[in-house]
Amino acid sequence: MSRQAKIKRALVLVSGGLDSATVLAFAKEQGYQCYALSFDYGQRHRYELRAAHKVACSIGVAEHRVMNIGLGDIGGSALTDTKIPVPVTPTEGIPVTYVPARNTVFLSLALAWAEVLDARDIFIGVNAVDYSGYPDCRPEYIAAFEAMATLATRSGVEGDPVSIRTPLINMSKKEIISWGAELGVDYSLTISCYAPDATGRACGVCDSCQLRSSGFRQACIPDPTQYQE
Amino acid sequence: MSRQAKIKRALVLVSGGLDSATVLAFAKEQGYQCYALSFDYGQRHRYELRAAHKVACSIGVAEHRVMNIGLGDIGGSALTDTKIPVPVTPTEGIPVTYVPARNTVFLSLALAWAEVLDARDIFIGVNAVDYSGYPDCRPEYIAAFEAMATLATRSGVEGDPVSIRTPLINMSKKEIISWGAELGVDYSLTISCYAPDATGRACGVCDSCQLRSSGFRQACIPDPTQYQE
Repeated sequence: MSRQAKIKRALVLVSGGLDSATVLAFAKEQGYQCYALSFDYGQRHRYELRAAHKVACSIGVAEHRVMNIGLGDIGGSALTDTKIPVPVTPTEGIPVTYVPARNTVFLSLALAWAEVLDARDIFIGVNAVDYSGYPDCRPEYIAAFEAMATLATRSGVEGDPVSIRTPLINMSKKEIISWGAELGVDYSLTISCYAPDATGRACGVCDSCQLRSSGFRQACIPDPTQYQE
Repeated sequence: MSRQAKIKRALVLVSGGLDSATVLAFAKEQGYQCYALSFDYGQRHRYELRAAHKVACSIGVAEHRVMNIGLGDIGGSALTDTKIPVPVTPTEGIPVTYVPARNTVFLSLALAWAEVLDARDIFIGVNAVDYSGYPDCRPEYIAAFEAMATLATRSGVEGDPVSIRTPLINMSKKEIISWGAELGVDYSLTISCYAPDATGRACGVCDSCQLRSSGFRQACIPDPTQYQE
């Protein structure tokens, strides 16, 4: 009898949003044992972390970990600094909702945990189409991170480097939602709004709400989001 | 009258050890307004953070910030996991004191703060000579991080990227100590030991103590370290 194949572990960044829920469902479908990682980085609201936990439980993970990092202290973004207003209309260039070096910080901490878990795949739901204003969502950035990670780690030095997996990078919101629906993702558990009300309902007007609702509309899938009146 | 030249800001990673104290003194001597960054990452002992603060105050910084990160939770290193003993003799390959992806995590958080501060220079006291077993202390790793950072950030996208400055990378411990002495560093404030006693005195036998004491000996400079009896 052949030895049972070693279970492949994947580390999946889960934010509580629609994109990362889709990525987690994909990693799970690919047969990975999934470890979900979320960050408490001083986001404006905590519904994201609650949503991340619901998503992780609903799809099924070996562990969901929330790491604290003090990004909020340093400010510099409308998402972590309450003195900077969240825009309701799209802007030119890099938006004020850009959090300095956020994906680099998130991927670095994921890399640390992946090395301890002996995982070789890190999944992240970055998307270059809808969020092209963020420099750290572009394929060339991801390739550069992967090259750096290969030189940074024990596994990389030993010839078995970590891959940064970005299955959504070239998909539109419509395509992501259609794919996630096929994978069985319950999008009612996710939250995308930058400025939900006190009960966690979405504002419906921020950049992120607009992208999300038009994605559901274009995919011809009912939008399960709870909006403010 | 010409406008006064803009003050250049530098972000300097300060660990409480001998190397980063030397780097901070060098950045200061170069005319930078220095922002010191240390991490509370579940190190075995807290003397490092106290030493980092003394060093920052002694050399003079605009701000010293200590960021909390949950690296201790994920284990994987003798420096953060009390179940893994600290070795007293040099080992082949990557030592167990290697903390997974540590420099990547530290540099990523430094990059985030640098972007908010509008600083273009990040100084780190990595050294490829004495610690060649750590993959993330090599020049090729630093170059790859810099390339990634250029693609990750607003300043990089706008053509004014961050530099990762590693003035010690090719120096021996003897050379570092000689240079720091010229720069006026008070090495009695620094701590290098992996396993100090309850009063903060160095063990004198771990890898790091051995490197340090032989550095002072070779530089013909009195070793100010307080050792256990």
